[in-house]
Amino acid sequence: MKHQSTNKFKILNDPIYGFISIQNEIIFDLLEHPYFQRLRRISQLGLTYLVYPGAYHTRFHHALGAMHLTQRAIEILRAKGHEITEEEKVATQIAILLHDIGHGPFSHALENTVVKGIHHEELSTLFMERINKEFDGKLTMAISIFTNNYPKKFLHDLISSQLDMDRLDYLRRDSFYTGVTEGAINSERLLTMLNVHNDHLVIDSKGIYSVEKFIVARRLMYWQVYLHKTVLSAEFMLVNILRKARNLALNGESLFASSPLKLFLNNQYTLQDFKADPDLLDQFAKLDDYDILGAIKEWAHHGNDALRLLSQMLVDRKLLKIELQNEAFSNAHIEHLKQKVKDHFNLQNGEENFFIIQEQISNHAYNNKDFGIQLLNKQGEARDILDASDQLDMNHLTKVVTKHFVCYPAEIV
Amino acid sequence: MKHQSTNKFKILNDPIYGFISIQNEIIFDLLEHPYFQRLRRISQLGLTYLVYPGAYHTRFHHALGAMHLTQRAIEILRAKGHEITEEEKVATQIAILLHDIGHGPFSHALENTVVKGIHHEELSTLFMERINKEFDGKLTMAISIFTNNYPKKFLHDLISSQLDMDRLDYLRRDSFYTGVTEGAINSERLLTMLNVHNDHLVIDSKGIYSVEKFIVARRLMYWQVYLHKTVLSAEFMLVNILRKARNLALNGESLFASSPLKLFLNNQYTLQDFKADPDLLDQFAKLDDYDILGAIKEWAHHGNDALRLLSQMLVDRKLLKIELQNEAFSNAHIEHLKQKVKDHFNLQNGEENFFIIQEQISNHAYNNKDFGIQLLNKQGEARDILDASDQLDMNHLTKVVTKHFVCYPAEIV
Amino acid sequence: MKHQSTNKFKILNDPIYGFISIQNEIIFDLLEHPYFQRLRRISQLGLTYLVYPGAYHTRFHHALGAMHLTQRAIEILRAKGHEITEEEKVATQIAILLHDIGHGPFSHALENTVVKGIHHEELSTLFMERINKEFDGKLTMAISIFTNNYPKKFLHDLISSQLDMDRLDYLRRDSFYTGVTEGAINSERLLTMLNVHNDHLVIDSKGIYSVEKFIVARRLMYWQVYLHKTVLSAEFMLVNILRKARNLALNGESLFASSPLKLFLNNQYTLQDFKADPDLLDQFAKLDDYDILGAIKEWAHHGNDALRLLSQMLVDRKLLKIELQNEAFSNAHIEHLKQKVKDHFNLQNGEENFFIIQEQISNHAYNNKDFGIQLLNKQGEARDILDASDQLDMNHLTKVVTKHFVCYPAEIV
Amino acid sequence: MKHQSTNKFKILNDPIYGFISIQNEIIFDLLEHPYFQRLRRISQLGLTYLVYPGAYHTRFHHALGAMHLTQRAIEILRAKGHEITEEEKVATQIAILLHDIGHGPFSHALENTVVKGIHHEELSTLFMERINKEFDGKLTMAISIFTNNYPKKFLHDLISSQLDMDRLDYLRRDSFYTGVTEGAINSERLLTMLNVHNDHLVIDSKGIYSVEKFIVARRLMYWQVYLHKTVLSAEFMLVNILRKARNLALNGESLFASSPLKLFLNNQYTLQDFKADPDLLDQFAKLDDYDILGAIKEWAHHGNDALRLLSQMLVDRKLLKIELQNEAFSNAHIEHLKQKVKDHFNLQNGEENFFIIQEQISNHAYNNKDFGIQLLNKQGEARDILDASDQLDMNHLTKVVTKHFVCYPAEIV
Repeated sequence: MKHQSTNKFKILNDPIYGFISIQNEIIFDLLEHPYFQRLRRISQLGLTYLVYPGAYHTRFHHALGAMHLTQRAIEILRAKGHEITEEEKVATQIAILLHDIGHGPFSHALENTVVKGIHHEELSTLFMERINKEFDGKLTMAISIFTNNYPKKFLHDLISSQLDMDRLDYLRRDSFYTGVTEGAINSERLLTMLNVHNDHLVIDSKGIYSVEKFIVARRLMYWQVYLHKTVLSAEFMLVNILRKARNLALNGESLFASSPLKLFLNNQYTLQDFKADPDLLDQFAKLDDYDILGAIKEWAHHGNDALRLLSQMLVDRKLLKIELQNEAFSNAHIEHLKQKVKDHFNLQNGEENFFIIQEQISNHAYNNKDFGIQLLNKQGEARDILDASDQLDMNHLTKVVTKHFVCYPAEIV
Repeated sequence: MKHQSTNKFKILNDPIYGFISIQNEIIFDLLEHPYFQRLRRISQLGLTYLVYPGAYHTRFHHALGAMHLTQRAIEILRAKGHEITEEEKVATQIAILLHDIGHGPFSHALENTVVKGIHHEELSTLFMERINKEFDGKLTMAISIFTNNYPKKFLHDLISSQLDMDRLDYLRRDSFYTGVTEGAINSERLLTMLNVHNDHLVIDSKGIYSVEKFIVARRLMYWQVYLHKTVLSAEFMLVNILRKARNLALNGESLFASSPLKLFLNNQYTLQDFKADPDLLDQFAKLDDYDILGAIKEWAHHGNDALRLLSQMLVDRKLLKIELQNEAFSNAHIEHLKQKVKDHFNLQNGEENFFIIQEQISNHAYNNKDFGIQLLNKQGEARDILDASDQLDMNHLTKVVTKHFVCYPAEIV
Repeated sequence: MKHQSTNKFKILNDPIYGFISIQNEIIFDLLEHPYFQRLRRISQLGLTYLVYPGAYHTRFHHALGAMHLTQRAIEILRAKGHEITEEEKVATQIAILLHDIGHGPFSHALENTVVKGIHHEELSTLFMERINKEFDGKLTMAISIFTNNYPKKFLHDLISSQLDMDRLDYLRRDSFYTGVTEGAINSERLLTMLNVHNDHLVIDSKGIYSVEKFIVARRLMYWQVYLHKTVLSAEFMLVNILRKARNLALNGESLFASSPLKLFLNNQYTLQDFKADPDLLDQFAKLDDYDILGAIKEWAHHGNDALRLLSQMLVDRKLLKIELQNEAFSNAHIEHLKQKVKDHFNLQNGEENFFIIQEQISNHAYNNKDFGIQLLNKQGEARDILDASDQLDMNHLTKVVTKHFVCYPAEIV
Repeated sequence: MKHQSTNKFKILNDPIYGFISIQNEIIFDLLEHPYFQRLRRISQLGLTYLVYPGAYHTRFHHALGAMHLTQRAIEILRAKGHEITEEEKVATQIAILLHDIGHGPFSHALENTVVKGIHHEELSTLFMERINKEFDGKLTMAISIFTNNYPKKFLHDLISSQLDMDRLDYLRRDSFYTGVTEGAINSERLLTMLNVHNDHLVIDSKGIYSVEKFIVARRLMYWQVYLHKTVLSAEFMLVNILRKARNLALNGESLFASSPLKLFLNNQYTLQDFKADPDLLDQFAKLDDYDILGAIKEWAHHGNDALRLLSQMLVDRKLLKIELQNEAFSNAHIEHLKQKVKDHFNLQNGEENFFIIQEQISNHAYNNKDFGIQLLNKQGEARDILDASDQLDMNHLTKVVTKHFVCYPAEIV
């Protein structure tokens, strides 16, 4: 790859931060790489736009935003006297820029179907290593920070921790584009409170209310956006559509699909396969939202009942009805629903199973098992926010909340 | 008072809501009344601008904002099928418009000194009754709603309850002007969730996360703005300045003061006096920030040491240092500080007492003693947010938190 | 179509206006119609997101926004004493909601290639008539307003005029999502200034500065967004890709394409065909961004050089370089470029023509030929903004500005 | 003055920029100086809050904002390769911080009455020199930049030019607090376009639309805010009140006034007096909004008819009616109005003259007489925006527009 020279002061518009400036040539070149450009075609929040019609923002934009916050964070840490070399600064920005590059379209659905069992973080590492070769080893430090092998641990904390730049950007960005303004966090305020203690990222103690607010806002975003009932229904419909399509493909049935999608529908690959065959990663890099939804639009006219009906429903946004509750649903209830679907749509061969979704979701607002958010007081001591907060019972927030849900066609009720 | 005819569609700029429209002639006339115009000269947050330099917004602007929200709330309640007559709508708007009209300048300081023991709500009622006479009884329904004597109790809830339009406006407005964006609440979202149940204002249950967010934001505003250490120091300095000035005045000492301030410095009036002598209310209506700070600026050159020094310190923003802690300070510590002040400034006659402030503050984020925030589920049942919230331990929020503080001149340490 | 009953007070999140409320059952049903739902899959600004990475908003969202503004506008006109019945209000909202429903994906490119010569407004009318049949004639008044056959002409002005709700929404929305904040207009302010004079929509004269600002902002959006150099290059590349694909298809070459895209690539339909064959409109209604970009992604591996190379370039965002100037480019220059392309890519059969784009664009900021923006003074007289503005030389703004441009591969220079 | 050591990273909340960070000890110390603290008590827009009730922001806040923008501008210029030493950076920030320190309360009114003929810029220089002595010469470079005696002329341009940081802040800040959002400028965008050419501040040519927008927004702010009819009426009433008070004072009449106001009412000082007597500047430094409005509130009960009535009117916001037109008003009309006032209020000794205000105002949106806004193209050539803008007739904007107005009591019509 040719590294063209570029003008020093490049600026991208961002509705959230105003402007994102790109200050380094290698970061330019990474932005222009097809692996990164593909993120323009992958929606950050999957099908969430079916509920929040503004939420079409992409993984491309989020990655840029997180890089921007990382740049600001490093400037603030430097101003507080923590030494970060220019090389470390760029490497940390690269690491956050590429932290999500392994995401496929509709990650959750894909990781449950066509690339089952392969986590996007593992693919991110593969992508980074591949690019590192192309870039003659210039990403080595970035990879070391990303995989937490770099000595200055607090740089990794900026990429991945309870209060990393990833979260700071996505909470604010998702709140902005969904219009769920209660989820907005004051990223600028939190940034100014960043500090380093015992080689880890901490928050100055006067930021306690901002941290509490961050945790509450995050929880709100979970229940109101990420785990919104209707979004769940749409995403699990997508899982079932892909599952059904894969069944048909493996049975030799012909299916409209782009060539990379065809490849992944017709075969079951493991992470080992990805490591062994470099071409596989290139094929994966061709997959994006357009392959998936383009296929589903055609499948809405397919001969198979389950595939056709579910695809139609998703395309026309006639989503399955969903019921949430704290307890599991009884088998009898599920069987009853299946029978009704079978009768109503006159289905055979167990195809009714694709119309009834029974799953559970869990969430905790705050997790300090490994290393939580630490507050640094003026005496130079750090305490977990759980212990530092003298009023809100933050321990409650670490509790895992589990909800059960069932989805079924509205027609059967 | 002459009621001039006005054009129907009057609009006021508001940086927060964009525009506030005035749709009723009587509301115009109230806005133009000198009693209401004086609120333009009373800062909503007292001396808070010494910490947050944008916080110069006035009680006038807040009253308009609360009226605007009330108008929107009523339109939403009507759209949900609750009958509210046009007369009731206007009366509720008037009630909220005038709910704070009894505030003097720096209310907290004044109510502790020159109008000791007279609460601003009592004065608001007196003002409303006075205006009602001028307006030939047209405020009678508004007064009835304000004093909670009107049959439709939910209209009073809009004026005064855990989730009234007063709070909705001031939290958002104070957050806006201070720049403490974490305190911002989504007033529009909350408004759309308003409903009526058993004649009381409630929130549709899907608004649960917004209500939680509202409570957390409110708590954040308390600790970060309303009870900010430096604000406390400034406000209690003001109390002591007024207390000292009053002592001097009652001892016959000559003091620069506007005529209404002179009247209230030289005399101690009771609520009974206000009711007996209509002129007293008129004199009170002449008091505003300009009387208080105008006097203090002159007192910065007065012969009395305590008055002069404290006034100088406030004017030049050389505020007393403040220490906060969970336990009370020992008498020994206080006495020690007083002695140091006495020596350092060479004071006599116990004047050092005016330089040492020992007080405590309390706050709870949520109070459901009388009638808390009720969530209305789809089955038409209402539950207190404390019981409805299945994750956050809201009970914690009802706990009263008390902090003790002491203020003293920075010079003595 | 079954009209389900719905709860009365439905609310959609919008990052721009906060909330959009749907107050009428028929509007709900229209929103749920597959013809309308498809607008979720059509980007409002085509490929502009290649320059402004936030600009993924859809025609669906814009249509909702314009409907929201129309609702507000009607309320304001009513408050100013203009009679608008509830039926007229709903009909006007329907007309604006559906005004863009005839848009296909990447309208500009499509109207130059696969549905050559068919304007989206004509298709909008066909769609509305079709839906009107399904809805038992309930859209008749809306169609009458849309086609300007309804007696109250000012209702049509809300849909289509120099200051219609379409523009008010799209300027603000496009400014918001691109982050080009200088293009933002104060839609709320302009709404409050709306009035009716001689049956036409006018602006109260005190809104003169807001109108001037609107015109300047609109012009800025044209040059900075709609006619941005890089956007032009991308869109004309798309035109050439579709043109090439069509050539190949008409020559019997096999091409990956969804079934509706295949239909329109393989045939050349006229508006008359659309009117004669109802199924054609249904096929058109199946086309969206996913068909076009899904195909181009596959074409990036096609055997034809021009199709493959241009598709690859678009997918990887290696766009053609573009040069703009006030005068036309000389034929010699164009021929020179073509020869270089031919040599560099080793092309045959005139395929180099697809790599060199020579076009021109024109724009005027303000057009008052038919009926411009009228300002209504207090004496009840209306004047064109051109005459009313006493300082800015608005006549300049009506001048058509034309620019010529040429695009070519960066590799040849 | 003792220079205390301070922590390095001090942050102030600003509703506009989020946060303003103070990075230098000497700037801290300047902020704490009583001369600077007094700006907290001087409203940036005088009596404009009588029209825009949010516009209570102070000269203190504006000075901080302008300093913040200057800091950003310098960082951007440095990133573009222009050498600016740390000492120069701090000096430029100091110069902008103190550029308005010579303003008294209601500058326009004061400069026409109690400190007639003394321009605030001259006082700013006096203040800076005084502080420079206290600070042992540390402001010498700042003063040199402020007075345009420093070699790098572009640093002075940041302080004072067609596109200086002063304007950038006040336009945005005034727009923000008044809620006149059409006046908002994208200061961040303009900052990123800053460059240096021939030792002067210029704008990169791609910023042309932003500059045009800036000029149009500025013009809008002039007519809609700074020269708003009602604001003019209020400010000229204030002039007449002070003029009348001064007349009475010079005639030996007793008037309520703070001691510094009394001094300036009773004497007529020249700039020479200020230079000769250092104490005079200290007395002037004691004047702020509280002295002026505090006095006027008392004068609303004074024995003199003109003083009493005008003061009452201002306090109760019963402002004089105002009429604007392009031509001068005839003497006959003015005399007619005076006679009516005289009769209506039963005035004597020519006091009616104080109730009739006859003035004119002028404004041009853009002035390039000395050195206008220069656009720098990619070839490194700079052109005035007037020549560079190919569409808007910017020459119009340089034309001086003059309007005549007359104010009179509403009662006489």
